[in-house]
Amino acid sequence: MSDKKTNFKPVSGAVLPRYAGIATFMRLPHLAPDDADGVDIGITGVPWDGGTTNRAGARHGPRQMRDMSTLTRNYHHVSGISPYELANCADLGDSPVNPIQIEDTLDRVETHFRTIHEKGILPLTAGGDHLITLPIMRAIADKARPLGMVHFDAHTDTWDRYFGESKYTHGTPFRRAIEEGILDPKRVIQIGIRGGLYTADDKEWGLAQGIRVVEIEEYFDLGPDKVAALAREVVGGGPTYISFDVDGMDPVYAPGTGTPEIGGYSTHEAQRMIRGLRGLDLVGADVVEVSPPFDASGATALAGVTIMWEILCLMAEKVAERKRG
Amino acid sequence: MSDKKTNFKPVSGAVLPRYAGIATFMRLPHLAPDDADGVDIGITGVPWDGGTTNRAGARHGPRQMRDMSTLTRNYHHVSGISPYELANCADLGDSPVNPIQIEDTLDRVETHFRTIHEKGILPLTAGGDHLITLPIMRAIADKARPLGMVHFDAHTDTWDRYFGESKYTHGTPFRRAIEEGILDPKRVIQIGIRGGLYTADDKEWGLAQGIRVVEIEEYFDLGPDKVAALAREVVGGGPTYISFDVDGMDPVYAPGTGTPEIGGYSTHEAQRMIRGLRGLDLVGADVVEVSPPFDASGATALAGVTIMWEILCLMAEKVAERKRG
Amino acid sequence: MSDKKTNFKPVSGAVLPRYAGIATFMRLPHLAPDDADGVDIGITGVPWDGGTTNRAGARHGPRQMRDMSTLTRNYHHVSGISPYELANCADLGDSPVNPIQIEDTLDRVETHFRTIHEKGILPLTAGGDHLITLPIMRAIADKARPLGMVHFDAHTDTWDRYFGESKYTHGTPFRRAIEEGILDPKRVIQIGIRGGLYTADDKEWGLAQGIRVVEIEEYFDLGPDKVAALAREVVGGGPTYISFDVDGMDPVYAPGTGTPEIGGYSTHEAQRMIRGLRGLDLVGADVVEVSPPFDASGATALAGVTIMWEILCLMAEKVAERKRG
Amino acid sequence: MSDKKTNFKPVSGAVLPRYAGIATFMRLPHLAPDDADGVDIGITGVPWDGGTTNRAGARHGPRQMRDMSTLTRNYHHVSGISPYELANCADLGDSPVNPIQIEDTLDRVETHFRTIHEKGILPLTAGGDHLITLPIMRAIADKARPLGMVHFDAHTDTWDRYFGESKYTHGTPFRRAIEEGILDPKRVIQIGIRGGLYTADDKEWGLAQGIRVVEIEEYFDLGPDKVAALAREVVGGGPTYISFDVDGMDPVYAPGTGTPEIGGYSTHEAQRMIRGLRGLDLVGADVVEVSPPFDASGATALAGVTIMWEILCLMAEKVAERKRG
Amino acid sequence: MSDKKTNFKPVSGAVLPRYAGIATFMRLPHLAPDDADGVDIGITGVPWDGGTTNRAGARHGPRQMRDMSTLTRNYHHVSGISPYELANCADLGDSPVNPIQIEDTLDRVETHFRTIHEKGILPLTAGGDHLITLPIMRAIADKARPLGMVHFDAHTDTWDRYFGESKYTHGTPFRRAIEEGILDPKRVIQIGIRGGLYTADDKEWGLAQGIRVVEIEEYFDLGPDKVAALAREVVGGGPTYISFDVDGMDPVYAPGTGTPEIGGYSTHEAQRMIRGLRGLDLVGADVVEVSPPFDASGATALAGVTIMWEILCLMAEKVAERKRG
Amino acid sequence: MSDKKTNFKPVSGAVLPRYAGIATFMRLPHLAPDDADGVDIGITGVPWDGGTTNRAGARHGPRQMRDMSTLTRNYHHVSGISPYELANCADLGDSPVNPIQIEDTLDRVETHFRTIHEKGILPLTAGGDHLITLPIMRAIADKARPLGMVHFDAHTDTWDRYFGESKYTHGTPFRRAIEEGILDPKRVIQIGIRGGLYTADDKEWGLAQGIRVVEIEEYFDLGPDKVAALAREVVGGGPTYISFDVDGMDPVYAPGTGTPEIGGYSTHEAQRMIRGLRGLDLVGADVVEVSPPFDASGATALAGVTIMWEILCLMAEKVAERKRG
Repeated sequence: MSDKKTNFKPVSGAVLPRYAGIATFMRLPHLAPDDADGVDIGITGVPWDGGTTNRAGARHGPRQMRDMSTLTRNYHHVSGISPYELANCADLGDSPVNPIQIEDTLDRVETHFRTIHEKGILPLTAGGDHLITLPIMRAIADKARPLGMVHFDAHTDTWDRYFGESKYTHGTPFRRAIEEGILDPKRVIQIGIRGGLYTADDKEWGLAQGIRVVEIEEYFDLGPDKVAALAREVVGGGPTYISFDVDGMDPVYAPGTGTPEIGGYSTHEAQRMIRGLRGLDLVGADVVEVSPPFDASGATALAGVTIMWEILCLMAEKVAERKRG
Repeated sequence: MSDKKTNFKPVSGAVLPRYAGIATFMRLPHLAPDDADGVDIGITGVPWDGGTTNRAGARHGPRQMRDMSTLTRNYHHVSGISPYELANCADLGDSPVNPIQIEDTLDRVETHFRTIHEKGILPLTAGGDHLITLPIMRAIADKARPLGMVHFDAHTDTWDRYFGESKYTHGTPFRRAIEEGILDPKRVIQIGIRGGLYTADDKEWGLAQGIRVVEIEEYFDLGPDKVAALAREVVGGGPTYISFDVDGMDPVYAPGTGTPEIGGYSTHEAQRMIRGLRGLDLVGADVVEVSPPFDASGATALAGVTIMWEILCLMAEKVAERKRG
Repeated sequence: MSDKKTNFKPVSGAVLPRYAGIATFMRLPHLAPDDADGVDIGITGVPWDGGTTNRAGARHGPRQMRDMSTLTRNYHHVSGISPYELANCADLGDSPVNPIQIEDTLDRVETHFRTIHEKGILPLTAGGDHLITLPIMRAIADKARPLGMVHFDAHTDTWDRYFGESKYTHGTPFRRAIEEGILDPKRVIQIGIRGGLYTADDKEWGLAQGIRVVEIEEYFDLGPDKVAALAREVVGGGPTYISFDVDGMDPVYAPGTGTPEIGGYSTHEAQRMIRGLRGLDLVGADVVEVSPPFDASGATALAGVTIMWEILCLMAEKVAERKRG
Repeated sequence: MSDKKTNFKPVSGAVLPRYAGIATFMRLPHLAPDDADGVDIGITGVPWDGGTTNRAGARHGPRQMRDMSTLTRNYHHVSGISPYELANCADLGDSPVNPIQIEDTLDRVETHFRTIHEKGILPLTAGGDHLITLPIMRAIADKARPLGMVHFDAHTDTWDRYFGESKYTHGTPFRRAIEEGILDPKRVIQIGIRGGLYTADDKEWGLAQGIRVVEIEEYFDLGPDKVAALAREVVGGGPTYISFDVDGMDPVYAPGTGTPEIGGYSTHEAQRMIRGLRGLDLVGADVVEVSPPFDASGATALAGVTIMWEILCLMAEKVAERKRG
Repeated sequence: MSDKKTNFKPVSGAVLPRYAGIATFMRLPHLAPDDADGVDIGITGVPWDGGTTNRAGARHGPRQMRDMSTLTRNYHHVSGISPYELANCADLGDSPVNPIQIEDTLDRVETHFRTIHEKGILPLTAGGDHLITLPIMRAIADKARPLGMVHFDAHTDTWDRYFGESKYTHGTPFRRAIEEGILDPKRVIQIGIRGGLYTADDKEWGLAQGIRVVEIEEYFDLGPDKVAALAREVVGGGPTYISFDVDGMDPVYAPGTGTPEIGGYSTHEAQRMIRGLRGLDLVGADVVEVSPPFDASGATALAGVTIMWEILCLMAEKVAERKRG
Repeated sequence: MSDKKTNFKPVSGAVLPRYAGIATFMRLPHLAPDDADGVDIGITGVPWDGGTTNRAGARHGPRQMRDMSTLTRNYHHVSGISPYELANCADLGDSPVNPIQIEDTLDRVETHFRTIHEKGILPLTAGGDHLITLPIMRAIADKARPLGMVHFDAHTDTWDRYFGESKYTHGTPFRRAIEEGILDPKRVIQIGIRGGLYTADDKEWGLAQGIRVVEIEEYFDLGPDKVAALAREVVGGGPTYISFDVDGMDPVYAPGTGTPEIGGYSTHEAQRMIRGLRGLDLVGADVVEVSPPFDASGATALAGVTIMWEILCLMAEKVAERKRG
């Protein structure tokens, strides 16, 4: 393969049917991060759910999402964006993880994304449970300009501890990221929050930091277009991360997840909100908590990976804009 | 266990993860009705589907609903109600039933609920098919002040007979209850009615009694908030029962049911309607027709039991109000 | 059975429970097309998916749709139509097909529908993949008065070729029908189009022919009632065909299909649009792409066959009107 | 259809693929019992599970077994029997039942089989729960020559009462049949009995009547060939019924059943035993307790209906022998 | 409940159907370990899979096994043992665990079993992944008389480390137990070992310690009766533990497990081996690696819990023997 | 990747857990056939089921088999073979196919395998339906020395035509191969044949050619070891192909297949037979008819791919032997 030039495009469906072939993200070429020179956007998986306090299974998310991703195509029918024309895209494989040790995994994941980040590649990630966003942020954030975040979720994930001791679970990443100064709470919006809580206090910490919480009831009152506008307002022009937990959507759209909460938004509404974020200064994004053992049909993975495709279009447009300078 | 005082609260998720432990409703302590002194709200199952003329399986509803109920928490994120702070709650086990004899079962269920009612406990029930509401009503209704009802369903359940002879099926409970004088048709509202009928006459009897039928088309025109307001108006200040058949919701939210009808409301809309019923003089409630063999995933049970949680909040608030006097 | 007169009505649920008995469409009598004298509306299956370029399985659609169809009843609760009172209906069995040869199958299916058409029977068809609509149209269309079509789908199905050579796939029927002069593109409306495309060109051909394409975004802006009105306007008073691909609906309503695209309309909205088409000069209709291997639960088949029931009501009313002259 | 002569043979797979078409048993013509003149062997369903004390669902057995039966063919590869050459076979539809009343159902089923029996048709039946064998025996047995039975099952089904009162459940048919004098316990063999019992007494009654019980441990010691020989010895030359409860097989072969007991025989062994019964004076047979809600895959129905095919071969050979006189 | 005496017996199926009621192990009364005075055999769950390096899910094992356990009865049809007549049995609930920390969990589990052991209760445990056997052994083993073990499994679970660092995974418990001096390798037999290995060395350590490894090929050559005899010989008269990993059985009997290996023994053969262990000096037992997310049907849990019932009979007999002195 | 030397070995489970990473066969490196210099054994998929006359789905086989293949390891616990030490192995991706045209596909597949064959690579293939074996044989057979074959299957696949016309279906490959002179019928053994036939004639053609047919009954009489010996005898020392249709196994081991026939051999027995073929002059092999839509659990794919692993060990040993000269 020595002297061939990599073609950073999906395998054509006219060469091999879309259901066929080795499943890489979007049918893109597979490159190890170390070999990823020339890549603008790197899609990668973090096959890990060791931070899950309830029903595990998100460790299997990246593989099923790769499988379903081969159903996607090349041209966005609404925005008209053809991402693979605008940016070099590749599947950078899965991050190393340790299924039975949290701290070790946090280090391995951070290292994986640091490699990617240092090559100037925008990371688009398939989880894994939500704790994985923490080491990704550690790898790509600049403390001088902490990240803003558009966060789609049923839960705030700003809890403090679990079982008395544990600082790191899939319910704590954003508390930790704010404490570490890599996430700016005033530039964070959380969309779709709902479900019973342990106590009224569970809401307090995040609000006190200045996070803009859009509970699902407010969401339904405003609708996706106004919420997207609000999100743009909250994160402003600074470096911004999109973190999309599939449980923000209603469980009928995303049954394969560990902590379902009835009464969320639809896939169409989620698409509409993502499209409304066009133009943000994106520095990374993830779609997390797809748990295949709870949805053998792959519907959740298809929903998740189609959201990744929506985000990919935004990223590619931004890449092209940056290239144009 | 002799001298320990029962703590009428869910097992804490910080002691045992929510997916773990023996599954009681909401992780509450289990008491037999005879031992249920001090209980304000008793959650109980009726594991029976002998009145089902089509696809059976609701006999397995209570167990799967107990399983999924352990995902619920303690504080309602919209109303701010903490039901376990306001009322003593317990799982009173399942009612005795006879899987192969209807009349015998009607007696056994009525006796079970009479015991509960006579201890001053509000019953919140997981079915079972819809016929179970009849013996519950027989146990708790006062003919001097017949019950009103907010009835969520795709079907009116006011048919007369089946196969020529049978008075008691899951399609007849409310005809029987009205005939017996324990349900006041003028204080009954039915929400979500739809689907093909055998003849135009199927609609007539209920309307002639004065039931307020909100077919799904009217529902979609009005929306959940106005329908909830209408329900409050119909039932007024008298003793009221909520009967929630999960097939009132669209089958995507409740696939595990015996007689699905496409085109219903969503879980979020159902939640919104229940929340709109705050303040009613509730004397009991049930969620019925969850049929696990038709939904191994448990999604229907999760939806059903989250509706139970919403109703529990209303009940607990009413208990606290009554205690305050 | 020599001298008995066929009763063109469903077996009564009071004689045999609806879940029981041999599964024919709507529990109607089964007649071979050659014996179908006196039939006004013939329901028939095309158990074939040889035109499927992605995930196959629609060959199993008719059987599962027959199974679920026995849940339907006799009287339409909104329109008040009792189709079996207005028209003689029967299940005409499945069309002959050749699972491994496309052209041979196109011939066999066309012959089957020609027999039906020549007896003056309106065909209501359960697919099968979408290519089957082409031979149906060939059998029933009059080139002097080409067909109009209300087309529900996520895809336009007006692609040209596949793998360089193949003219006939489930992505090409309407390009072929227009080329053959049996479908009038100016009287075609496509509702729910969405999803990624290979290139921007994929959209062009149909629009250039004059097809009115309602992409899902426009659909959501207009809502089902206005879209139905628009459809009536587009097809006008000429002979019209309804082709309903279940993937026009959101995958949560129709998971059992080969090429799901997230973000579609609901079953209720689909019902509402069909009801809005009352009065069209219907000459045939189909519901296609139900793929049972991808939905063992039968939910997709139930949705599909309930849409068939909605269309059957329109057809029966039209039959009665024609009979009245 | 007036003057056509019915062809009592399966629809050819060369005309319509085996997965296609309306599903009748073995793709045979469908005739109502009243119209079944000329039929030698009538295959019929009893879609009822009202006698089930545990997990219901066998009411759906006949339909799924019809579906899977279309995979069978015409020639037995071991015995060389071509049943459709030897006997006129037809699908006689489902017996009337009342899903919510046992006694009424017992009457309806007996009447159905009496009609069949009086036309000289051998009944081959798909259940339904095991209680259905009782009314079948009532319809076909001659008290002067009570039936012998080869009974495949994990349970003896000779319990007495249930919940104190109920004489008729799927655990009691053979106690009742023996009491009624239509089944001769000395000519009964039960094969595969196993699983925990309530008390040691559960075994006693049957043994005291003279039933030959082959517990699964003895079965594995003897092997299928010797057990078949033993069965022939026990039932001798008198009129004999085969009742095959699919739970006699190991649950891996028959997961879709209401009361699975681990550790049974395989389908191959069951086939071998049935083949070993060649030559018995068969007067009827059934395969019961296939419960589709517990096996959506249809594997249990396929196993059950292949056993029906094996029995059909024996019956057809016997019919031919009787015809030859 | 103050002055009632606990009845250490299953709820009768004649009072509440076996599918109904709150699911405790074998329908036994639920007692916290601290309240378990008078109990001879305590059944308990360890809902934890944090040691799983491949597909997780065994954390959900105990709950599904409780559910399926309610299908068991009271009298063993082969041995004639009625365990509940011989020993006081109870469900002692689930052990505390920490889903995200291994060492903390090892401590919590050991404490739970120490409480049980110190009350003189024999523990019968439902896992959980196989690492849980280590803290159970720590709690009940006497280093002066280390444990023997009959170990059913496809894997030896005597690996050393994982990912370089981790001493504790579900592949290492018996290496650790031997190192800690609580398990005597010369009194250990492993039955059913098979499947690819990383290197030939994987086999060496255990053999060098003196473990008697019966690979599946040897198993099939010897058959279950001889293997059981061999096991009795290996463990002799000393204190012995039975550890039953369901993946020792063929995956068709136990699909719901994390590391399936094709080609194992059947449930019947497993039953036969357990029955062949009658008379051992049992001090505890477990059935592990039932992973419900990989078998929603519950078949694996039913197999697992029926094995628990088989072991329970052995334990109860031993308890009775000890009581008799 | 220019100057790196490919390591033809699986990714280590100590670097990335076995459930993680892009799924290639056995976690081997992926190379296009054109780049496959140095490869000894090439594993490749043929994602096509266009020859399927019954239930399709085998087109999805290669992808699911890749997924499950990552559970295999490196060392064979019985034979002691470490295939990756003996031969350079790689995943050569999927063959081009045309899902809707048979002849075109036959050409594309033949070309794919011709490329592989001409590089001296032994092909090990995952189907696809059984017709794919024909173009593979066309690519690798030498008419001067036609192939022998050990054929595991429930069906002989030597039918002639289908629907009158079609020469090429998954029921005809070996009739065609024999006619074409590339398969020597006298060196063919078929193991596990069973199930109903259309007529007695179906058996004749193959027997007349001299094929050694081992029907399942003979198989059970002989056992796997003797059948393997018989197979070695039949194929002798000439070039030999192994074709393993998973439906030769009992459907409990391989439910995910299009034409299941109850009563086959087990996975263990299949493994045993394959191991008994050690030393044959293997020139290629395939495992076909894994149909994931009929087995979402992946159990069939796991069985199929473990059989591939068994065959791979034989091939690698043969490669090493040839290398040694």
